[in-house]
Amino acid sequence: MSTTSTNHRNETRIAADPALPTIEIIREFEATPERVFRAYTDPDLVVQWLGPRRLRMRIDEYDARRGGSYRYVHIDDDGSEYAFRGVFHEVRPSERIVQTFTYEEYPDGVSLETAAFEDLDGRTRVTITSLVDSFEARDGMLASGMDVGVREGYERLDELLARTA
Amino acid sequence: MSTTSTNHRNETRIAADPALPTIEIIREFEATPERVFRAYTDPDLVVQWLGPRRLRMRIDEYDARRGGSYRYVHIDDDGSEYAFRGVFHEVRPSERIVQTFTYEEYPDGVSLETAAFEDLDGRTRVTITSLVDSFEARDGMLASGMDVGVREGYERLDELLARTA
Repeated sequence: MSTTSTNHRNETRIAADPALPTIEIIREFEATPERVFRAYTDPDLVVQWLGPRRLRMRIDEYDARRGGSYRYVHIDDDGSEYAFRGVFHEVRPSERIVQTFTYEEYPDGVSLETAAFEDLDGRTRVTITSLVDSFEARDGMLASGMDVGVREGYERLDELLARTA
Repeated sequence: MSTTSTNHRNETRIAADPALPTIEIIREFEATPERVFRAYTDPDLVVQWLGPRRLRMRIDEYDARRGGSYRYVHIDDDGSEYAFRGVFHEVRPSERIVQTFTYEEYPDGVSLETAAFEDLDGRTRVTITSLVDSFEARDGMLASGMDVGVREGYERLDELLARTA
């Protein structure tokens, strides 16, 4: 059954490479790379979509340029805080972001995260690659339920892009 | 044949993990973690040992603290320049440094480098782990002859530590 609507739900694909300690996330958005990139780098926008719906988010620092740092906190209903931090190795407007990522509860765990923004004739494909130093760490990230937060966050990003179109 | 000299040559071990896209380098030094850490983080010292003997080194920036950036250039006799840059994710005095690393000739190639400093009763074991996102990239790093520069650099660091003892 064909449809003329562009209002289909874009699927979030999350894959663990069997041969590499990586997680790859692929998601398409109904907006240009410029707009998706801005939603990834402007803290006033990031705070509106990153993470699952049930958590509040506080951004302490989000300096999305080469050499900048970031720190943000997700806050549960009971006040529990989950803090994340890292540095931006590369920020290439509308193309590519490379950053480090640490969940402060495990300060020795560091992942290297690359986001690539691909122009699909006005739509955008985002490919995220998270690289860690062991398969145990990678499988632990997947087992943590991060996929729920990723999928919900991207639905919130869909909504943000729609209402700011 | 036994000897009472502590002037033995410490061996540099460089290993490629068969199951992970990493290079591990292990080297011991006849100095405390505090002194070895300082030689790793003070640009006035770094410039005296990092890299092979035949190259001059120029440091453009070396801000070895969490969130700091670095850039340095190795210069050949014919004036050719080889530039490297990255950001410091974590700098834990005398214990641990985590930084990103890019050879600017291949700006999309990024490795995540961890240096751990271990106290061996006044001597120090340094363990470096370089993590990249493919086995091809890892094997390419090894094939580049980086091991020569690493070994020679550490001999120069031995000399620096001896003359500043």
